[in-house]
Amino acid sequence: MKGPEGIAQKVKNYIGKHDRLVGLLGARIEEVTPGYARVTLTVDDKHLNAANVCHGGVLFTLADLAFALASNSHGQTALALEVSFSFLKAAVEGDQVVAQAREVHLGRRTATYLIEVTRQGGEKVALMKGTVFRFDRPFPPEE
Amino acid sequence: MKGPEGIAQKVKNYIGKHDRLVGLLGARIEEVTPGYARVTLTVDDKHLNAANVCHGGVLFTLADLAFALASNSHGQTALALEVSFSFLKAAVEGDQVVAQAREVHLGRRTATYLIEVTRQGGEKVALMKGTVFRFDRPFPPEE
Amino acid sequence: MKGPEGIAQKVKNYIGKHDRLVGLLGARIEEVTPGYARVTLTVDDKHLNAANVCHGGVLFTLADLAFALASNSHGQTALALEVSFSFLKAAVEGDQVVAQAREVHLGRRTATYLIEVTRQGGEKVALMKGTVFRFDRPFPPEE
Amino acid sequence: MKGPEGIAQKVKNYIGKHDRLVGLLGARIEEVTPGYARVTLTVDDKHLNAANVCHGGVLFTLADLAFALASNSHGQTALALEVSFSFLKAAVEGDQVVAQAREVHLGRRTATYLIEVTRQGGEKVALMKGTVFRFDRPFPPEE
Repeated sequence: MKGPEGIAQKVKNYIGKHDRLVGLLGARIEEVTPGYARVTLTVDDKHLNAANVCHGGVLFTLADLAFALASNSHGQTALALEVSFSFLKAAVEGDQVVAQAREVHLGRRTATYLIEVTRQGGEKVALMKGTVFRFDRPFPPEE
Repeated sequence: MKGPEGIAQKVKNYIGKHDRLVGLLGARIEEVTPGYARVTLTVDDKHLNAANVCHGGVLFTLADLAFALASNSHGQTALALEVSFSFLKAAVEGDQVVAQAREVHLGRRTATYLIEVTRQGGEKVALMKGTVFRFDRPFPPEE
Repeated sequence: MKGPEGIAQKVKNYIGKHDRLVGLLGARIEEVTPGYARVTLTVDDKHLNAANVCHGGVLFTLADLAFALASNSHGQTALALEVSFSFLKAAVEGDQVVAQAREVHLGRRTATYLIEVTRQGGEKVALMKGTVFRFDRPFPPEE
Repeated sequence: MKGPEGIAQKVKNYIGKHDRLVGLLGARIEEVTPGYARVTLTVDDKHLNAANVCHGGVLFTLADLAFALASNSHGQTALALEVSFSFLKAAVEGDQVVAQAREVHLGRRTATYLIEVTRQGGEKVALMKGTVFRFDRPFPPEE
């Protein structure tokens, strides 16, 4: 694969290989295209908080992962500046959770994304809005 | 310990025992008093993202944990509605990270907190602002 | 008009009549349906900041107005709790600015909206995410 | 006045003279020092929304003004990227409202501020967190 789609594919592979939280939480990077990413997770016991529902930190990390993939998908290093997160509904053990990041605005120095977190049946679980700073550095870095 | 301080202590113990992410990430709940909480973490390899700095999801989860402890510290169930997170500086392997949540406003139905994330030397790493909904249910739940 | 559409129409009329900022800024309430609102404004000299572009407060107020209309459109009093606002592009004198609020989640006690601010040609100017608290009080209040 | 304080004073004068919303809303710029600003407003009839309390847009604009003053106070052009706003308590007609912006983090390219909105007696009305992008352009611009 060449061009923008090929770059997005390289970003997917690199982050999938090097991001430690993907493995620690058991997330799956499903798809990365220019300006878009989809990541999934099945909620199990290790993801629960003291109220026995999926930890806010797990939903955030999943959304943040989709956000990082989408914002770096153009092959230019992007770093999160600001994130706003709305908790809409609790996710529980057994839920199949999906985080999808979509580009709202791509500027030269900053870019903004909406990341929707849903579960089976498309029910909304959370909504995140995030803005990155874009550096003059390629991503992934040369190895 | 009795009164508000005793309740905060029970909340600390309950969340410390039941929150799975505390153990998964290796966080330490240091202190919980009414409207306040402090949680720490030493960044190690398992917390890193593909850029080899501490994952945004780890910083968020640490802050979220302090937020949950402080907002439930009055013995009334609080659930996060909205969170806004500013990434100020990258934390790296070996950093001693501290998240401190302080109550800004305690209303009957909602309450708002500032959660400051710093590392050794007091350097600011992140700043979170979060609002909870307060339910008419005691916390911890009767076991 | 009866039913939900009729209620939304009453909310439109009431806010249009009583909100002082609508007149002060010269905003126009174009449409209100259940969970949706559209408000417009033509940027002129009185809306400019010291950099001679449309004041952030004007864009916010326009978005906030659409947010208030959409969140009260069901005939139940809604009050803003939290708002997050992304400035994407500057609006300048002469721009026709449109703020559209859409319901993302309608819960019993809280509800969440996305408010998109665009200008002529559909170009994005700002994106707001807002959450309200819903009271057990009808809106508009009985006069 | 020379040095950083003198620059902050020039920023105060320039924004005070050129920002149209200051006059439209009747705000008063009280103080600007490096990284800090204080702006006040007396809520009167023209600031009210349809619920007869101070419009969210007025509180936001006041906070945004303090934010703009503080973030430009170093003599370098700063533009708002992201703002998060918590409504804590309604302000009503006759209230003396104060917005104070304080610098939380000053980076080379971005900076973050907390803006507290209070009324008489120090009661908290709102809390804003905002991040700017810093351009390589002096502020105020040469006239």
